[in-house]
Amino acid sequence: MASVESQQDFFEGTEKLLEVWFTSSDGTDRDLRTIERKDLDALLKLVKCEIISCTSSKEMDAYVLSESSMFVTKDRFILKTCGTTTLLAAVDGLLKLVKEKVGYDMVMDIFYSRKNFSRPELQHGVHQNFENEVQHLDTLFPNGSAYTLGRINRDCWYLYTLDDEGVSHPDQTFELLMWDMCPEKMKIFTKEVCQTGPEASQKSGIVDIIPGMKIDDFLFEPCGYSMNGLLPDGCYITIHVTPEPHCSYVSFESNVPQESYHDLIEKVLDVFRPGQFLMTIFANKASIARDTHKTLENQHTIKGYRRSDHQMCCFKNYTLTYTQFKKSAKPTQFSRPII
Amino acid sequence: MASVESQQDFFEGTEKLLEVWFTSSDGTDRDLRTIERKDLDALLKLVKCEIISCTSSKEMDAYVLSESSMFVTKDRFILKTCGTTTLLAAVDGLLKLVKEKVGYDMVMDIFYSRKNFSRPELQHGVHQNFENEVQHLDTLFPNGSAYTLGRINRDCWYLYTLDDEGVSHPDQTFELLMWDMCPEKMKIFTKEVCQTGPEASQKSGIVDIIPGMKIDDFLFEPCGYSMNGLLPDGCYITIHVTPEPHCSYVSFESNVPQESYHDLIEKVLDVFRPGQFLMTIFANKASIARDTHKTLENQHTIKGYRRSDHQMCCFKNYTLTYTQFKKSAKPTQFSRPII
Repeated sequence: MASVESQQDFFEGTEKLLEVWFTSSDGTDRDLRTIERKDLDALLKLVKCEIISCTSSKEMDAYVLSESSMFVTKDRFILKTCGTTTLLAAVDGLLKLVKEKVGYDMVMDIFYSRKNFSRPELQHGVHQNFENEVQHLDTLFPNGSAYTLGRINRDCWYLYTLDDEGVSHPDQTFELLMWDMCPEKMKIFTKEVCQTGPEASQKSGIVDIIPGMKIDDFLFEPCGYSMNGLLPDGCYITIHVTPEPHCSYVSFESNVPQESYHDLIEKVLDVFRPGQFLMTIFANKASIARDTHKTLENQHTIKGYRRSDHQMCCFKNYTLTYTQFKKSAKPTQFSRPII
Repeated sequence: MASVESQQDFFEGTEKLLEVWFTSSDGTDRDLRTIERKDLDALLKLVKCEIISCTSSKEMDAYVLSESSMFVTKDRFILKTCGTTTLLAAVDGLLKLVKEKVGYDMVMDIFYSRKNFSRPELQHGVHQNFENEVQHLDTLFPNGSAYTLGRINRDCWYLYTLDDEGVSHPDQTFELLMWDMCPEKMKIFTKEVCQTGPEASQKSGIVDIIPGMKIDDFLFEPCGYSMNGLLPDGCYITIHVTPEPHCSYVSFESNVPQESYHDLIEKVLDVFRPGQFLMTIFANKASIARDTHKTLENQHTIKGYRRSDHQMCCFKNYTLTYTQFKKSAKPTQFSRPII
């Protein structure tokens, strides 16, 4: 059992991730970025987090939060929050806000996802288990589908989405969730080693993952790091680091379109050197990433990591690839149960 | 809420399915079929079912049970039981029996699977939910992996298996689990229409699904049907029918090797005409069915059925395809949630 001390030190880096696409039945041009700051602040109060800073590109407003990030475009709202935030408490409020203040009257698609928590018992409300989260979302959406990818008795990843056609323009989301991190790499994301977010971004190599990003980065006291990186054409990356050795965790997310994510994966792994990671790739039919699952099916190793799980889901418009890797010098030993 | 009457009439057709492969560390030739009948009877007592009849081929003994079927070969034990049987209560006893009476000292692979129950609350012991079943199996196997395929808030299918290399010779298992059955077709499996198992096998067209089977079939009083069909080279099919309209369910299972299961699927669908079905195909690397998942990925319709879910899992030695279909004249209506 964990001591009182280690319980106090524990931080749940694993994020809850919500992405909602809106549309209008009358086709009128609308924009989620017209929502006022005070309304966003009130919405985030329900989630128990707040805005630290904001940067913008032509296509999106990107917010660094006290717990992770938020991205707002014309028709898409992304909210990613870690710790013991109560993300789903804001969904109903978000729908009402969008209807009243922006005028969108339909949800085109929704994706709610997360890895299994290290300590689910510390979460609040419906977030202690996925079944409760699903029940809550089912009260808001008539045709939601809930899935579990990976091993339910080890590490897994949960998804709630609509059984619907979704957006028709190219769309893809790539996520790398990493844990059992390299302690040396994690030191960079503490005030012992770096004084500021930009210093940590530089020293870690984050600035070089995709060159030319407009970066908004923040180093927390005494440790922890968040960044949003904006790229042309509405592309973004977002990285969040929980460096504490006993609960180390890093997430990398991006919507950059790639026919193969191989080089990007290797770059991210070089920066963070996790002991284990899982990767999810959503790509719709119009995306150049739509066949990624086929090449990944035969990829059993990446740079000293060995695959432990690989799954693929076909949805109406998206293909989802889920794959999990573990650092390993050689194949796992044969371990036939002895009777 | 269901009336008392309908609760009494309810039968859970959905089976629990266990397949265990054994091996010896010393390579000595052994045979599970040397287990005595009295020991099998005692084992099935733990499960709360019993043997009705037995047929044999050169490669296997096939048993029709009071609740479903059992197959025993040299090194593989298959037990499939429906209703409120307690299948997992027998796993520990099976391992001990096999070690003491046969001499196998290692489990080479295990597959425990089932669809979600219609009425889980009527099940006994660990069987009320999959998490408890997994906890029980985890006490017996050090490297078990548990998965959920399909939608956890609709219909889904659970699997527990070992993260291991498994058998190296060609192996494949094809299962079609069907529900919302055609009432006309189901009438055949009642004593109102047929007097015996063979009459029901003939009238339904089951005898023609794969010609040349050695059939052991049984029609229950007042309704319900079970059959085992033995084929050359250790192949089998097994069918179980729960015809009651309010809880109709049929399962079809076979290990016949096929490069494509398309024709077999169409034949089985013609015999039973379900409203919905899910299909699972396991194929190891040596099987001619190993690429089935690739052709099925692009199969969105089969004979008036439309696909609602498609998933693929890569295990160390097996590829598993999970797919679900629903009877449908046209694509599901767009159903974007209105805010």
